[in-house]
Amino acid sequence: MKNRIFFTTDSEKTKRAAFEAIKAEQETIGYYALPDQNIEPIISYTETIPKTVETIAVIGIGGSSLGAKAVYEFIKPVKKLQRKLYFFESTDPINITTLLSEIDLENTHFLVISKSGTTIETFSIYKYIYSLHSDPNAYTFITDPGSPLEQYARSIDASVLHLPENVGGRFSVLSTVGLIPLALCGIDIKALLEGAKMIKESFFNAGYMQNTLLNKAAYYAKYHTQYHINCLFAYSESLKYFCEWYVQLWGESLGKHQRHSAFHVGLTPIGLIGPKDQHSFLQLIMEGTRDKSVTFIKIEDFNDTITIPDVTLLHLESLDTLNGLPFEKLINMQCDSVMEALLNEKDIPIDAIIIPKTDEANMGSLIFYYELLTSLVGELIDVNTYDQPGVEAGKIILKQKLKGK
Amino acid sequence: MKNRIFFTTDSEKTKRAAFEAIKAEQETIGYYALPDQNIEPIISYTETIPKTVETIAVIGIGGSSLGAKAVYEFIKPVKKLQRKLYFFESTDPINITTLLSEIDLENTHFLVISKSGTTIETFSIYKYIYSLHSDPNAYTFITDPGSPLEQYARSIDASVLHLPENVGGRFSVLSTVGLIPLALCGIDIKALLEGAKMIKESFFNAGYMQNTLLNKAAYYAKYHTQYHINCLFAYSESLKYFCEWYVQLWGESLGKHQRHSAFHVGLTPIGLIGPKDQHSFLQLIMEGTRDKSVTFIKIEDFNDTITIPDVTLLHLESLDTLNGLPFEKLINMQCDSVMEALLNEKDIPIDAIIIPKTDEANMGSLIFYYELLTSLVGELIDVNTYDQPGVEAGKIILKQKLKGK
Repeated sequence: MKNRIFFTTDSEKTKRAAFEAIKAEQETIGYYALPDQNIEPIISYTETIPKTVETIAVIGIGGSSLGAKAVYEFIKPVKKLQRKLYFFESTDPINITTLLSEIDLENTHFLVISKSGTTIETFSIYKYIYSLHSDPNAYTFITDPGSPLEQYARSIDASVLHLPENVGGRFSVLSTVGLIPLALCGIDIKALLEGAKMIKESFFNAGYMQNTLLNKAAYYAKYHTQYHINCLFAYSESLKYFCEWYVQLWGESLGKHQRHSAFHVGLTPIGLIGPKDQHSFLQLIMEGTRDKSVTFIKIEDFNDTITIPDVTLLHLESLDTLNGLPFEKLINMQCDSVMEALLNEKDIPIDAIIIPKTDEANMGSLIFYYELLTSLVGELIDVNTYDQPGVEAGKIILKQKLKGK
Repeated sequence: MKNRIFFTTDSEKTKRAAFEAIKAEQETIGYYALPDQNIEPIISYTETIPKTVETIAVIGIGGSSLGAKAVYEFIKPVKKLQRKLYFFESTDPINITTLLSEIDLENTHFLVISKSGTTIETFSIYKYIYSLHSDPNAYTFITDPGSPLEQYARSIDASVLHLPENVGGRFSVLSTVGLIPLALCGIDIKALLEGAKMIKESFFNAGYMQNTLLNKAAYYAKYHTQYHINCLFAYSESLKYFCEWYVQLWGESLGKHQRHSAFHVGLTPIGLIGPKDQHSFLQLIMEGTRDKSVTFIKIEDFNDTITIPDVTLLHLESLDTLNGLPFEKLINMQCDSVMEALLNEKDIPIDAIIIPKTDEANMGSLIFYYELLTSLVGELIDVNTYDQPGVEAGKIILKQKLKGK
């Protein structure tokens, strides 16, 4: 994975301070250690799930589902997987009914994932599904050690796995939260972690990623009141759910009261897919207010060789320039063209992430790259990157409504 | 459909001027007339497609696909449809290969939709699929009258349908562009247009929607430099693609150079789905910069009666307040709770659209409501709502690259 950045900052002192802060953060924030974890217990656990189980269904929301979904949807189109993976992540009744109609309960293993163990959505859905299928062997619970959920799970003799306490939901994809469902489907989680580790080592050991990430983070932070919308423009349909994961990671980490001021700050994430969104959001980037940065993601090798045939259509001869072109070359030319057009505007900060191919290692790299970038920017704009106090108010109102119903 | 707005503007003169401008625009802008069109020719056309056709596949991008997709995905979960609808809207080779593996070419009818008739994406995909399946009867072309594409289609004896010339792509869902694929799948397009017509008449004939839309548009325009990010927070998974349609409509229409100034302006659309995005984007809305308005969409009747069972989980007794609650009531309570929490902040503009049920008429209303709102805001912030000059630069660079390849 490479990252070509078309802007620069000169604040070396700021960059060094951010680097030292992140280095120190490793003592208290758990996600930094995940690439180095021992995955033997996870592999052993997956071997306890019978071969007859055809479907894995995650009951979880937000940080408990978005990461695994991003990886699964990226790998699924290019690899024959052992099992299908479904996500129950909404209280929308139609959605629940539709998903249940697509799976065979008898051959499904459910992963109930909730850090706190009391997530409203997760337990409404769990209660409903458990009432249809009350075999404890069909469920595994993933939660904080000692949570009431763990106690419940033990009481029905179901399996329980822990997630490290100091790993927050939106940073948990490389923990049991993401690795268990992915490993059960045949995703190579060892390669996923190795990809993450490459970025980690490059960053902490003065490799290519250190200056790259520090430069990008320092720029985003320095201009965070001007370029406060950060678009991720990925040229591959398989990165659609990665964009959703990015939106949670970025928005929930960086939209905060500052730690040492009374002010609201926030960087707004936008996920875009090319070339589709050239016909949608691009106009706004090109001619709208200059408040957006854009990061392009390109995949060099799509592992698919389909080519536009050498066909001339009468009256449409101007389209003959497409003939003989592999689609993977076309989509990357489209990406390059839009990037050049935006660079010509001079006042839109642009960078490009280039992924050699669609595989687990590259996805692991991409995930860890974005986690590090988020931590760096959070440090530099003076917010607590790891909490989310703003979501509590709505939960408290809901609890009151539920009591009064 | 109702719209409850929790903010107000006092600029009566501005509202009147906007109303008069939109009234006058009906002479030149075609979409206003679509609710009153005669659909007999469309119905007759659909009857020419053999009953053996099981799948309809749209080859189109942006305005040629997003509208039909929004309606189809909204109705599909609640209605048994006659045919499946697929969308080829990316040059991503893996996406094309995956979609082709899911359909049976012999029983598929392709709708090739391109207003200009020369869209790069559409014709690369068309050339590829036509080389696999070169039966002209399997294709219908929808394009501007007299375009080179029409001439090509005539040369191979394929069907051609027109879209009204003065209807732009992103405003075309209620024209042949959207109605043909939807009607072929058994969507009730008469009801869809009737729903749109209700909003149209209410707006133009001093009904409930006139003041509602003028008030909302005047507020968005007056504060467009402060509240320049407009979130649509829909509490139903089935509105996911409606959000994508909204993003194109809003972003491509309202991100522009002003007509009478040298400045860039832009309103940034964000599509969110509840309750999922309570666990993602909500933190940024609650505690981030005060630059976002939020419109909630609630569906009153989901046409599904599943209920959280009366089950107590040991150690999780606090969750008993959920017991006996229908999911459709829970999801709406979640929406209300988040809305109240945001209202308590006092400085976030909020409104709520309430949809009685999931059907074609309500979707037609929602579409026309958003089209009118877009036209009004565009008029008030002094942009040409209907062009998209910003997307040309990238296309020109791509053409040069293709010639030099």
